[in-house]
Amino acid sequence: MDKKNEALHINKGIERPPIINPMALIQFRIKKQKKHPVSYYVNGICSGNRTILSQAITLVESRNPRHNKIAQQIIEGCLPASGKSVRIGVTGVPGVGKSTFIETFGRHIIRCGKKLAVLAIDPSSERSKGSILGDKTRMEKLSAEQNAFIRPSPAAGSLGGVANKTRETIILCEAAGFDTIFVETVGVGQSETTVHSMVDFFLLLMLAGAGDELQGIKRGIMEMADSIVITKADSGNEKKAEMAKVEYQNALHLFPEASSAWHPKVLTCSAVKNTGIEEIWKLIQDFVEHTTNNDFFQHNRQKQAKHWMYETINENLKNNFYQDPVRKKTIADYEAKILSGNLSPFMAAKRMLNDYFQNKVQ
Amino acid sequence: MDKKNEALHINKGIERPPIINPMALIQFRIKKQKKHPVSYYVNGICSGNRTILSQAITLVESRNPRHNKIAQQIIEGCLPASGKSVRIGVTGVPGVGKSTFIETFGRHIIRCGKKLAVLAIDPSSERSKGSILGDKTRMEKLSAEQNAFIRPSPAAGSLGGVANKTRETIILCEAAGFDTIFVETVGVGQSETTVHSMVDFFLLLMLAGAGDELQGIKRGIMEMADSIVITKADSGNEKKAEMAKVEYQNALHLFPEASSAWHPKVLTCSAVKNTGIEEIWKLIQDFVEHTTNNDFFQHNRQKQAKHWMYETINENLKNNFYQDPVRKKTIADYEAKILSGNLSPFMAAKRMLNDYFQNKVQ
Repeated sequence: MDKKNEALHINKGIERPPIINPMALIQFRIKKQKKHPVSYYVNGICSGNRTILSQAITLVESRNPRHNKIAQQIIEGCLPASGKSVRIGVTGVPGVGKSTFIETFGRHIIRCGKKLAVLAIDPSSERSKGSILGDKTRMEKLSAEQNAFIRPSPAAGSLGGVANKTRETIILCEAAGFDTIFVETVGVGQSETTVHSMVDFFLLLMLAGAGDELQGIKRGIMEMADSIVITKADSGNEKKAEMAKVEYQNALHLFPEASSAWHPKVLTCSAVKNTGIEEIWKLIQDFVEHTTNNDFFQHNRQKQAKHWMYETINENLKNNFYQDPVRKKTIADYEAKILSGNLSPFMAAKRMLNDYFQNKVQ
Repeated sequence: MDKKNEALHINKGIERPPIINPMALIQFRIKKQKKHPVSYYVNGICSGNRTILSQAITLVESRNPRHNKIAQQIIEGCLPASGKSVRIGVTGVPGVGKSTFIETFGRHIIRCGKKLAVLAIDPSSERSKGSILGDKTRMEKLSAEQNAFIRPSPAAGSLGGVANKTRETIILCEAAGFDTIFVETVGVGQSETTVHSMVDFFLLLMLAGAGDELQGIKRGIMEMADSIVITKADSGNEKKAEMAKVEYQNALHLFPEASSAWHPKVLTCSAVKNTGIEEIWKLIQDFVEHTTNNDFFQHNRQKQAKHWMYETINENLKNNFYQDPVRKKTIADYEAKILSGNLSPFMAAKRMLNDYFQNKVQ
């Protein structure tokens, strides 16, 4: 018996569990999902199957272009069944009590007979990758609800941008029958503008505090708010919260009227004591009624849809350029030349663009 | 004599000035400028020739790609002589007294031995085309100064974006020996962020007023300011200006520290009475000293230069797509399909992109 056969023989003799290559497992899972036709997903989603909804969202979030292609077809299939929800953006700095608020507020909405999907977005930074909503234990009770669907933020760096993933996921959730959508974001970056462009109602959570009201939150965010809610109005903090409410209400008066002709209101609440929660839901319903009556609701949705198209195009144009292997290889050189003062930023841009477009576009 | 010859004969006989086709005049002027080699412009600018500087800026602002090509070469030629200035952004809502301030402040700086170029930018809207700095009579005395160079805002819609035109013009002005650059903008749109990305020091002009301090000015702008100056502190308005100063100084304390480690200061001034003007210039010099010592000045310039490259690339990518005749023709159709709910924004984007990239890029 030569060495090779001996080795084979030994291997055959050993009773041990087969070694499974984790990559093979992933391949298998992907292949398994790929087997289903688009109709499987569309029908499953539209009949409210949460497992299939989750699978479809995974395809949407995948970095694999083939998955994205199927995802697009699923989205098209779900489109006619989508749109029938109230989309609510929820933002606030870390520490404002966002998870506790969403848990209590979400359960209230479900008790009112609604079906709630909670999504998260943070396209502004790699840093907070997975940090919001990543920990499902933060919303234990809400997660356990039959009519709640919680989906963590997609990982940064996915094809086509995190923002688009969330936008597409909204459509799938709506088609699955979720009539209330929360899009959660951290109120410290550029993500609020993005979230604002995909929701009907923008809710800003703020802490009561002496002097530090403005700290940490970008000024422009207050301007976008349809309502500011002062959280943690409990445990002797009630008076401070009321004072902050007056303060913010005064500040909001200074802003020019929004095109919704809606006057943003400031409320206080305690997610722990479950006070003020009902009033917030009432306010959102008032908003929907107000903006439906004056046609802003539908008009705004259409404006947003157009905006999504342009955003998708612009993002893809950039991806195609910056992900191009030649660009990836040369851009650092150009940067260095600019920093050393040997090349103007405009000339550097022009040279890279010429190289990119040569024999390619036009 | 037939009718035609009769007409010729009559025309010949009439003594009147030759009819000049205005288009021919423009062609002539362009051709005349085109004759000069790049070295003519570079040498002219670097020797401080204002006429040649103006001609070169016209080439920079031209919508003609051939002019832009020469302009790029001129900019490259001027690059080694550029950069040695303090770039100051000046912004404030209409009515704040921007022109009067710039006139008085500019003349003070010139009396201090400086050479001042005043540029304007308003890339955010077509609406205000030519409205800022368009009227030179607004700064009569400053215009008359030997060491001042005033250039109105380039017309919107020029190739490559108004912002880049201003950025490129800064380089030419610096090469021409202007050691202080003002970039003026109206503090109501997105242009402030653009200006902020091309200056060393960002000056926000504000009016004193009861309660309306925040009105009209976007919140994010205050955050970018290295100094807020309360204008019109005269004619019995002094006390109100002082109160506003305290108010703003308190508000600024709430902001997190800027990466320059500079603490923005609030000052008051009267451009009419020439009070407080000296202090503003002193403050800017303090800023330059402070940021030069902690390396922020140079670091920020380098960051900005890289930013310009990326902005130029992104703008060109978009122009190439949206200015493409096929895209121009089909985009309205896609928009209509989205609005009628027949197509998702993502699919619309994808189809347009596929069509654009097919056989072109990759």
